[in-house]
Amino acid sequence: MKLFDGGRAPNPRRVRVFLAEKGIEVPLVPVDMGAMGHRDEVVTRRNPLQRLPVLELDDGTVLTESVAICRYFEELHPEPALFGAGALGKAQVEMWQRRLELGLFNFVAQAFRHIHPAMKDWEIPQIPEWGEANKPKAIAFLRFFDGELASREFAAGDRYSIADITGMIAVDFMKPARIAMPDDCANVRRWYAAVSSRPSAAA
Amino acid sequence: MKLFDGGRAPNPRRVRVFLAEKGIEVPLVPVDMGAMGHRDEVVTRRNPLQRLPVLELDDGTVLTESVAICRYFEELHPEPALFGAGALGKAQVEMWQRRLELGLFNFVAQAFRHIHPAMKDWEIPQIPEWGEANKPKAIAFLRFFDGELASREFAAGDRYSIADITGMIAVDFMKPARIAMPDDCANVRRWYAAVSSRPSAAA
Repeated sequence: MKLFDGGRAPNPRRVRVFLAEKGIEVPLVPVDMGAMGHRDEVVTRRNPLQRLPVLELDDGTVLTESVAICRYFEELHPEPALFGAGALGKAQVEMWQRRLELGLFNFVAQAFRHIHPAMKDWEIPQIPEWGEANKPKAIAFLRFFDGELASREFAAGDRYSIADITGMIAVDFMKPARIAMPDDCANVRRWYAAVSSRPSAAA
Repeated sequence: MKLFDGGRAPNPRRVRVFLAEKGIEVPLVPVDMGAMGHRDEVVTRRNPLQRLPVLELDDGTVLTESVAICRYFEELHPEPALFGAGALGKAQVEMWQRRLELGLFNFVAQAFRHIHPAMKDWEIPQIPEWGEANKPKAIAFLRFFDGELASREFAAGDRYSIADITGMIAVDFMKPARIAMPDDCANVRRWYAAVSSRPSAAA
């Protein structure tokens, strides 16, 4: 198999961090997203939505969507369980994975795509007013998340999970999106420092 | 357990359709979202994000996020498998569940929330230009989906799954969002007619 990878972009990194946590090595095919490589024929033929990452299995089967690719590897290599354990544990990871994706990552991404000058050929039309409207939504979520993290170590409970990966990547994405971490989010800062210092974060 | 339900809103219905497909009955607590019942104390105490549905277990544990609630029931009652079977099958359902959620449902929801007059107290600020920008994105996705459905019966393969539920609900949501199904999407129309005629669609 091979993984068409997109370098520094958030979603490709999400899968690389996941694989590093699992201790799985997959051959990478680098794609230069800065040069719009994700819209060339090599990627488009495999994913008409022109998004990365794309996993191609040895028989040619293609999987897209970072979380779907992660789930494939979770099923093949169940330990350490990064999607949770038990019915309730799995549901709680799913809940927090979604909360962090829809309630933080998505808002940060919208702010970046609709405001940053480098995105003008990516997001058409860019609507700066919409980009700005996402910033307070992201901040409000961080304050909610901060309250949750007062009583536990990781996003979905006492064990590291894919929800932490999504959350870490969302916080890293705040920098180019020009959203500052609020001073009063001490628990989020503690959590972010912990997940960012894991060896997988360098992936 | 009890499920705090939001009537006609898309996400609460997503869980009801899922439960109907599984043949599971859960006591419902109706919440009148038209009267902003999802922002009252009963819901906010359980889900500070003020979203429905909310599942409360007998010990008081709360689960939110429609897909997380569905996954909880999938783990408790694995048959029929609505999240797919086997590593590849589960990954393909996840891929299509996400494609239909992020590539269709989300665009339709943004168009509805940023354009419909009834949403002016829900989505602040309403940005009609952003609402309009989502319509061609939804249409483009439907044409891509139409090509995919030329060679198979359901969204993620030959078996009905949660991806079909998300897709059906997204298409139903197109009506209040004032997005018309393109005439050339014959495969999507065939698929929609089939999933909408299942008894679960009435849930």
